[in-house]
Amino acid sequence: MEVLSAFQYSLIYNAFSFTFAAMAATTLFLWISRSQVAPKYKTAVTISGLVCAIAAYHYFRIFESFEGAYIFENGVVTATGVAFNDAYRYVDWLLTVPLLLIELVLVMGLSRDETVSKSLKLGFAAALMIVLGYPGEIADDNTTRAIWGTLSTIPFLYIVYELFAGLGAAIENQHPKVRSLLKKARLLTFASWGFYPIVYMAPFIGLEGPVAETVIQIGYTIADLVAKAVVGVLIYLIAVRKSAVESEIADERREAQEALPV
Amino acid sequence: MEVLSAFQYSLIYNAFSFTFAAMAATTLFLWISRSQVAPKYKTAVTISGLVCAIAAYHYFRIFESFEGAYIFENGVVTATGVAFNDAYRYVDWLLTVPLLLIELVLVMGLSRDETVSKSLKLGFAAALMIVLGYPGEIADDNTTRAIWGTLSTIPFLYIVYELFAGLGAAIENQHPKVRSLLKKARLLTFASWGFYPIVYMAPFIGLEGPVAETVIQIGYTIADLVAKAVVGVLIYLIAVRKSAVESEIADERREAQEALPV
Repeated sequence: MEVLSAFQYSLIYNAFSFTFAAMAATTLFLWISRSQVAPKYKTAVTISGLVCAIAAYHYFRIFESFEGAYIFENGVVTATGVAFNDAYRYVDWLLTVPLLLIELVLVMGLSRDETVSKSLKLGFAAALMIVLGYPGEIADDNTTRAIWGTLSTIPFLYIVYELFAGLGAAIENQHPKVRSLLKKARLLTFASWGFYPIVYMAPFIGLEGPVAETVIQIGYTIADLVAKAVVGVLIYLIAVRKSAVESEIADERREAQEALPV
Repeated sequence: MEVLSAFQYSLIYNAFSFTFAAMAATTLFLWISRSQVAPKYKTAVTISGLVCAIAAYHYFRIFESFEGAYIFENGVVTATGVAFNDAYRYVDWLLTVPLLLIELVLVMGLSRDETVSKSLKLGFAAALMIVLGYPGEIADDNTTRAIWGTLSTIPFLYIVYELFAGLGAAIENQHPKVRSLLKKARLLTFASWGFYPIVYMAPFIGLEGPVAETVIQIGYTIADLVAKAVVGVLIYLIAVRKSAVESEIADERREAQEALPV
């Protein structure tokens, strides 16, 4: 394993610890705040917290694996020979990426049939995308990396299509007060996901050794923070606003009914 | 102890960590979401979460035991000489398999007498099945394995009979909106359990050494994930749907009664 500079080591080390703290904090925030949304949106908030909890666990493991793989002593970083288990990322994504799409579907408050069908389709495509990406990630040569990366792009494009075409109509049907927030959540999901293929391709632009390692670790970490913690808080805000809007509408209806001549 | 290839080691290592994360996440999901079902079905959801919590604990232990049994250094896996404690699985099943059948009985919402009698019968048969299977699992020769495996099949067949004949009539009496979900839960329980004897018999088809070890570990892990986490979420969905159906029926009755001339 390539040895990192003291700066690179500290940067990665502290980014892992930061991300564990941020993910665990977001989990707690979401689960504690769950009582403040209408029953209809509780599951969306529960799952947003779950995604951050799973990520917190994996960042804890990644941090420990990184600590086991390197020794930083007397200002010099040396490899211990113990492998740094990067597979934790893929194991995490296999669980969290389908759930991220499901939380987005759930907060829209569609009919049961639509919710089930969209969750299943998007969840399955997301899992397939992760599974196809992994063989490329661990490949030593760029050709194998390119082949699996390309295969993985097929379900990715399907997800993007579903998010914009499939969910597009459903978003237009939402109350004007939440429409723009939902569009932001969708855009942020898409934009943060766009980060992953860029990091995946780091070795193609000639980056290698410690620099590539640092770019990959920091890149994936930032993307995870946006896709899970920031999107999770956004899902919560949508749930809060939808709960308020729907309770207002229900109140107005009740008042209108009571005002009718008997 | 047989030494594994780097690929086999990583596969098992990451499967254990994945399963710990998935079981712990399902536990949290079920316990947090428990507030969303009618009081009548809360115990079924509590127990579904409990099954996943017990499994999460054991996968954590299995993971640690595996970490202690092998060293993966400089790309080579060597055995440390410390035994990998596979008995964790049987200890886990002794607790979780009876509970899995009880959660299925509880979500049906039968009368108290029926619930108690079916839970006791199925729970006892499940515990007996696990106890009889263990001596075969640790046996060195295939004959001993076959004898205990066959003995263990007797309570297994009784459970299958009870699930399909005994609970069959009770499922037919359920509301049409939940009947198919209940059948799915029963089928998934049966299908995921069918996995265990197949894995148990891996040594009979000539698999041995590291390949048998990998097949057994990955096979049991997949079966556990389906039988506990997937079935647990299904039990929750049944509980949610039954709660909704029963509250609708109660509402209709109240309205019908209010519409009656006094």
